[in-house]
Amino acid sequence: MTQLQVSMCMMLDTFEKYAKTDGDPNSLSKSEVKTLLEKEMPEMISGAKDKKAVDDLVKALDFDGDGVVDFEEFMAVVAALTCCFRGVATKSKK
Amino acid sequence: MTQLQVSMCMMLDTFEKYAKTDGDPNSLSKSEVKTLLEKEMPEMISGAKDKKAVDDLVKALDFDGDGVVDFEEFMAVVAALTCCFRGVATKSKK
Repeated sequence: MTQLQVSMCMMLDTFEKYAKTDGDPNSLSKSEVKTLLEKEMPEMISGAKDKKAVDDLVKALDFDGDGVVDFEEFMAVVAALTCCFRGVATKSKK
Repeated sequence: MTQLQVSMCMMLDTFEKYAKTDGDPNSLSKSEVKTLLEKEMPEMISGAKDKKAVDDLVKALDFDGDGVVDFEEFMAVVAALTCCFRGVATKSKK
């Protein structure tokens, strides 16, 4: 597999690892999203000032408001975070 | 780094590896997009029936029509391809 294909599989695997914890294995419940963020993006969660900030973040990731985060929504978040991450990394090189 | 963070860095690295070939290192020219797809997603290109199909694909990835594919456009494509890839993988499990 190529580097890009490996990264795609890693994102797929990350989603499925947390989505299968409870309920529908094809979507992330609120608690699964929280656990995923705590484990995979600890800086994001540790930076959150309080519980409400985390709840608001989790709610924000559920774009269609159906109460869960599906794979498309997860990928949109990863894409957005990667763009933010690149923006920070590019600024620090200047 | 976590698995998700590693995959984000790999996508960043993939984009920058090809974007620096010519012109602006912060965007992919048409030829850089073609090379990236040929190297990183060979099945996608080998499946294209002719040169025009590849040109149309490259043009389609330039969402804002400014003649290049920037990082946000690249990430949108990777997210969409990963969703398609998951859809195929999920169907084949049934």
